[in-house]
Amino acid sequence: MSFDTNMRFKFSILAIVLQIILIILFGIFVRYKTEDHSSSHNVTQSDDTFIDLYPFFQDVHVMIFVGFGFLMTFLKRYGFSSVGINLLIAAFGLQWGTLMQGLWHLHDGKIEIDIKSMINADFSTATVLISFGAVLGKTSPLQMLIMAVLEIFIFACNEHLVGFLGATDIGASMTIHTFGAYFGLAASAVLYRPGLKKGHDNEGSVYHSDLFAMIGTLFLWMFWPSFNSAIANHGAEQEMAIINTYFSLAACVLTAYAFSSLVEHKGKFDMVHIQNATLAGGVAVGTCADMNIGPFGAMIIGLIAGIISTLGFKFLMPIVASKLRIQDTCGVHNLHGLPGILGGIAAVVATALGAKPGFTPLLQGAALAATFGISVVGGVITGFILKIPFWGQPPDQSCYDDTVYWEVPLEEEEHDNQYQGEHGKIKMEA
Amino acid sequence: MSFDTNMRFKFSILAIVLQIILIILFGIFVRYKTEDHSSSHNVTQSDDTFIDLYPFFQDVHVMIFVGFGFLMTFLKRYGFSSVGINLLIAAFGLQWGTLMQGLWHLHDGKIEIDIKSMINADFSTATVLISFGAVLGKTSPLQMLIMAVLEIFIFACNEHLVGFLGATDIGASMTIHTFGAYFGLAASAVLYRPGLKKGHDNEGSVYHSDLFAMIGTLFLWMFWPSFNSAIANHGAEQEMAIINTYFSLAACVLTAYAFSSLVEHKGKFDMVHIQNATLAGGVAVGTCADMNIGPFGAMIIGLIAGIISTLGFKFLMPIVASKLRIQDTCGVHNLHGLPGILGGIAAVVATALGAKPGFTPLLQGAALAATFGISVVGGVITGFILKIPFWGQPPDQSCYDDTVYWEVPLEEEEHDNQYQGEHGKIKMEA
Amino acid sequence: MSFDTNMRFKFSILAIVLQIILIILFGIFVRYKTEDHSSSHNVTQSDDTFIDLYPFFQDVHVMIFVGFGFLMTFLKRYGFSSVGINLLIAAFGLQWGTLMQGLWHLHDGKIEIDIKSMINADFSTATVLISFGAVLGKTSPLQMLIMAVLEIFIFACNEHLVGFLGATDIGASMTIHTFGAYFGLAASAVLYRPGLKKGHDNEGSVYHSDLFAMIGTLFLWMFWPSFNSAIANHGAEQEMAIINTYFSLAACVLTAYAFSSLVEHKGKFDMVHIQNATLAGGVAVGTCADMNIGPFGAMIIGLIAGIISTLGFKFLMPIVASKLRIQDTCGVHNLHGLPGILGGIAAVVATALGAKPGFTPLLQGAALAATFGISVVGGVITGFILKIPFWGQPPDQSCYDDTVYWEVPLEEEEHDNQYQGEHGKIKMEA
Repeated sequence: MSFDTNMRFKFSILAIVLQIILIILFGIFVRYKTEDHSSSHNVTQSDDTFIDLYPFFQDVHVMIFVGFGFLMTFLKRYGFSSVGINLLIAAFGLQWGTLMQGLWHLHDGKIEIDIKSMINADFSTATVLISFGAVLGKTSPLQMLIMAVLEIFIFACNEHLVGFLGATDIGASMTIHTFGAYFGLAASAVLYRPGLKKGHDNEGSVYHSDLFAMIGTLFLWMFWPSFNSAIANHGAEQEMAIINTYFSLAACVLTAYAFSSLVEHKGKFDMVHIQNATLAGGVAVGTCADMNIGPFGAMIIGLIAGIISTLGFKFLMPIVASKLRIQDTCGVHNLHGLPGILGGIAAVVATALGAKPGFTPLLQGAALAATFGISVVGGVITGFILKIPFWGQPPDQSCYDDTVYWEVPLEEEEHDNQYQGEHGKIKMEA
Repeated sequence: MSFDTNMRFKFSILAIVLQIILIILFGIFVRYKTEDHSSSHNVTQSDDTFIDLYPFFQDVHVMIFVGFGFLMTFLKRYGFSSVGINLLIAAFGLQWGTLMQGLWHLHDGKIEIDIKSMINADFSTATVLISFGAVLGKTSPLQMLIMAVLEIFIFACNEHLVGFLGATDIGASMTIHTFGAYFGLAASAVLYRPGLKKGHDNEGSVYHSDLFAMIGTLFLWMFWPSFNSAIANHGAEQEMAIINTYFSLAACVLTAYAFSSLVEHKGKFDMVHIQNATLAGGVAVGTCADMNIGPFGAMIIGLIAGIISTLGFKFLMPIVASKLRIQDTCGVHNLHGLPGILGGIAAVVATALGAKPGFTPLLQGAALAATFGISVVGGVITGFILKIPFWGQPPDQSCYDDTVYWEVPLEEEEHDNQYQGEHGKIKMEA
Repeated sequence: MSFDTNMRFKFSILAIVLQIILIILFGIFVRYKTEDHSSSHNVTQSDDTFIDLYPFFQDVHVMIFVGFGFLMTFLKRYGFSSVGINLLIAAFGLQWGTLMQGLWHLHDGKIEIDIKSMINADFSTATVLISFGAVLGKTSPLQMLIMAVLEIFIFACNEHLVGFLGATDIGASMTIHTFGAYFGLAASAVLYRPGLKKGHDNEGSVYHSDLFAMIGTLFLWMFWPSFNSAIANHGAEQEMAIINTYFSLAACVLTAYAFSSLVEHKGKFDMVHIQNATLAGGVAVGTCADMNIGPFGAMIIGLIAGIISTLGFKFLMPIVASKLRIQDTCGVHNLHGLPGILGGIAAVVATALGAKPGFTPLLQGAALAATFGISVVGGVITGFILKIPFWGQPPDQSCYDDTVYWEVPLEEEEHDNQYQGEHGKIKMEA
């Protein structure tokens, strides 16, 4: 094996160094938003906002850690990495994101932590987790940490640019979904592996891995109204964001099932579509979520998103793999890329129709284009940095296989073969 | 095979047509409750209600999609359908339920969406999901969509009747649990399959499918206080609904375990009882939940519910199957039917004791009887409609088997047999 | 077999008798906090507290039932017991804890139930669930009920003592984590089984059981900020508790991964560390959570906790097993014991630095020492009571095996052997 996947010192040292740098930067720059006011009692508004939004934060938190983590456990032998590296990236990313986003909004030279900054920190990790889906199974944990460092920095800049342009993107169809998808796809293109062109034995699911993935799907689906409304203005706008997302997702489920049955052998449903395309309505309604588009408007967006996403999985994904040479493990193009662009376009239309006063189609379109361009360029650069062999990426034959980076327990039926090296996992006695 | 289970066009067209009809009806009839008031600032009460009840809504949402969905994954080869068709029915049902319930409460000819209408829409889907449990494994997705159309219409009428009678049913022991159970049992009776009289190879669980089902059980169990209190009056009544449900469920767990051990071989626990009978306390305390019955009163209801439900599974279910010819896959009679009736009766007693001023035992009893009667008649009619062979129901030998309606991945040990048709699931390259 | 593990009457009778005693005591002593005020409208503060804290309660509830329950499902053949006995203990414990804690805070001779008493009742069960982890697989459900009776009584006394001493412990690093861990370890020492010295075939995990355990890990991890802040003072202190826990846990993940890779074969991650040590930051920041330690202070605590916990699993656990003869199935010493003590010490340092006015290092240290001593003595006494053979503990060869206390379904590949006694689980027909 010419690849050195032993991360013993490389990974440990990088992780510890990053964490110590974070602590130092937090010590210098970060403080509680509440602390200056803790002795006065005229801050009830601030207090109530914190406790009112805390359930929204926790819903988003569940989406990030359980939703994204379990959605990717569909692979038969890559569940530890999916849910485990997801946790690693997100735990690092929320600290790094706090700094990268906070630097654009300093108060007396300090970053102030409140519930909205925590929600935004979680959001910033979502971009990396989406990109992770594009390169899943083909990268090392070390590479993913480095991707998180780079991507969250670029994400925070792009997000600031979108706001600077005067565009709105409350549910982040553009700044998170479009950005995360095309960043990941661009990186995956650079990291293209010809040896996986014919597929890989471990690239499919087994029965129970598909059920684990449904845990991820459902928590994403249920809590998406919180994702799209968490940082909306209190009152009517936040309520519309909840209602629109609720109905968009419901409509999307019907078309995802309908088109899955339509395009599959003998009218059967395909779990890949159900796990993913049912969520496209949440992505696509994101930018418009807090606009006065009417529940039926949200449902139309969801209906289209379910169709586009399912057809993307069925027909576009093989072409992207063969012609564009982009191996998109989780199909993030179909769940986040296309529906994200749909969301951006929907907002162009909605602002043209006056659904949110103060925003213009032109600037919405500019924000979408800028996001697309920056994500692709950022992803390409990141891809080349990740290509350096030092980061311990797996050889082709070990892709989609937890045993490269994890101690994996012997299955009962495997006691006689060599699936794992030398020992079982629990050793109580010397 | 004389059954045609290929749903390619039938299902797709029905699902798309239903979704388009829903969008048209929403366009005509549905608006945000908030939108008329969005520019004024004297609607703080309304705003706070929305955000205060949003966590209750999300808890109910989790019960509907994860709770019901995973509870039914106990079958060894029917997990995709359990969690997948649950999602399909609920996503359709919440849109349809919004209309069916809203039509009874029009404002200027419009249905207004707020947090309570969203909670109620989720509630309306629960009836179909309960009925789904009775026919699980023996119906096609197409049949389930049709059942959802019919059942939610009848449910909304019955719910309105119960309110019209002047009865109270805050946690819906009657209108959801009793209704859903007997509707489903009546339909199952009409759809009786003599060929399954001796059981079916796929009708049991395997070790991990029982653990997946416990995910459903626990999320139902934990969030049941939200279910029973979500639409209660703010303040003491809502708080009592939470407290009563909390203690009823706790007491129910003890008796479910005690009686499971008592009736089983060598004093062992049976997972069927633990997955289901531990929840009966939530069902049974529903109607009384917001009444001043005292925590100990709630515990007595839970104690009885746990006993009735466990004994129902052990002794009544085989009789219902053999004598009444009702094949109740999930035992909804024991989890929703009997405890639902217990809940209705408990409210008769509680109102007689004055636990909720303004409500009378007589009208509570009338509401229970009406609900029972309407659900049985509705279920029988629905059963006959579902019996038309056009809907693609599975032949006896393919019951409880995901492969009829789903692309199912090959297990590693199955590579050499024909469990699945022609290919694995992921195909990246042409 | 000289052990009688048939619990048919022993367990059933004890469970029913305990439940009836609880109902009687609740009838005499327990009332709603709301009920006296239900007709007046000047109790809005109380009402708002209830509904404001309800999401915190539900998060804690999920941690207790899903978090602890699934965390222990890592064992290959002990998932039913892990999640099932967890439910049993917690459902009993929350009722018993309501009484044991309430007796220290009577109002007119009554225990009043409100949202904080419910949160505290859930907390009191956590101690038993932690201790359960130390004896997991080696005890009967009957023994666990008895442990719950004894431990919650002693816990409530110790908790009262800590408050009486004038110490603070908002996130319960001492009163729950340290207490639960050393209580369980002391009991496990008394129950030492020399026959398990060489390990046991069932003592490891399989691939999917490790994924089930990650469900537990993640829900604990995500909702830990709610655990540490649920009963904090409204406003700045509660907000700091959330923020500190959020960042402590994030930092802890990085060091848990780094040290897992550092100490394991070829730099691989070990699921035992990831499932457990990533949570140590939540334990260790508990006592200090509502103090003004700064986000970077919280991160330092998390960083140290992740290191200590991982090293504890790798190097200390085998020594504890061989030298101290304490068989700690889940490694609660490394997740709750050491990080709990770290949390107690951190609060000594933080109060010395003035992070929470009104509290002194001396009394914090006294509280930690008292908690440690009381838990060890309580655990030893409980261990001797549990050692009485009457309680139906399993013989060594049946440890870590669900089939002793559960009806376990036949696996498909097991149809021909005798894994289960006489029948499959579902019998619809006589």
